[in-house]
Amino acid sequence: MLAVALEEARKGYEEGGVPVGGAIFHLDGTLLGKGHNRLVQEGNCSLHGETDAFRAAGRRPHWHDTVLVTTLAPCWYCSGLISQFRFAKVIVGDSVNAQGGMEWLKQQDIEIVDLASPECIELVGRFQRERPDLWKECIGEA
Amino acid sequence: MLAVALEEARKGYEEGGVPVGGAIFHLDGTLLGKGHNRLVQEGNCSLHGETDAFRAAGRRPHWHDTVLVTTLAPCWYCSGLISQFRFAKVIVGDSVNAQGGMEWLKQQDIEIVDLASPECIELVGRFQRERPDLWKECIGEA
Repeated sequence: MLAVALEEARKGYEEGGVPVGGAIFHLDGTLLGKGHNRLVQEGNCSLHGETDAFRAAGRRPHWHDTVLVTTLAPCWYCSGLISQFRFAKVIVGDSVNAQGGMEWLKQQDIEIVDLASPECIELVGRFQRERPDLWKECIGEA
Repeated sequence: MLAVALEEARKGYEEGGVPVGGAIFHLDGTLLGKGHNRLVQEGNCSLHGETDAFRAAGRRPHWHDTVLVTTLAPCWYCSGLISQFRFAKVIVGDSVNAQGGMEWLKQQDIEIVDLASPECIELVGRFQRERPDLWKECIGEA
């Protein structure tokens, strides 16, 4: 599942954007939607990796039977998404380069699996060094 | 400012969608973006009134000099948006029909002005009675 989100993150990097990818799967393993940060590509500050995957997944009565995968720990915006929609599980690739609302979500008994993926950690770490301006813009701190 | 968001909410209602509208202004009063929930219209669960206005406002280095207006108290997803991007002020039309993360945001010293607008309260209240299915879907509880 993380490989799908990582491929999205790499697409974002190749497009000159913020390299964070996301994907949503049904608990049975079916892919429902995937996406990546589109700040640069669409001039759209609302599309982080997680929210772009959420957009792509379309309409569902609820999300309690789905898994949200993200290459980078969810920022507070995306932590709010997770808190509201109560995905069955959250899979995170990298919680080294950002932590966001990880601890807050755990306190809400949301299951978070941190895979500490070297590929995810390297990709965002490199981007933060190469484009601190874009990184800070995408989290509203530029 | 609330009138702009309320007009958006009414558009959403006329379109058969969830009638919540949002707008973002610079502190000097300039309108930066406005929008409304697009769950039905675009099949897009990621666009609440607040996030649609955020999308419309385009790119900014940060949002600390802007005001977010919403006809309905922000759900946890949109409360996460506010927590991450630290708008200078949040103006709310209705905190009767939903409360979301209002108290959590106040604890973070985010300034929230609750206008308790009868028009906003009536509009969402009517929608919740008429279309409980759509209301619950938009908050992920159907």
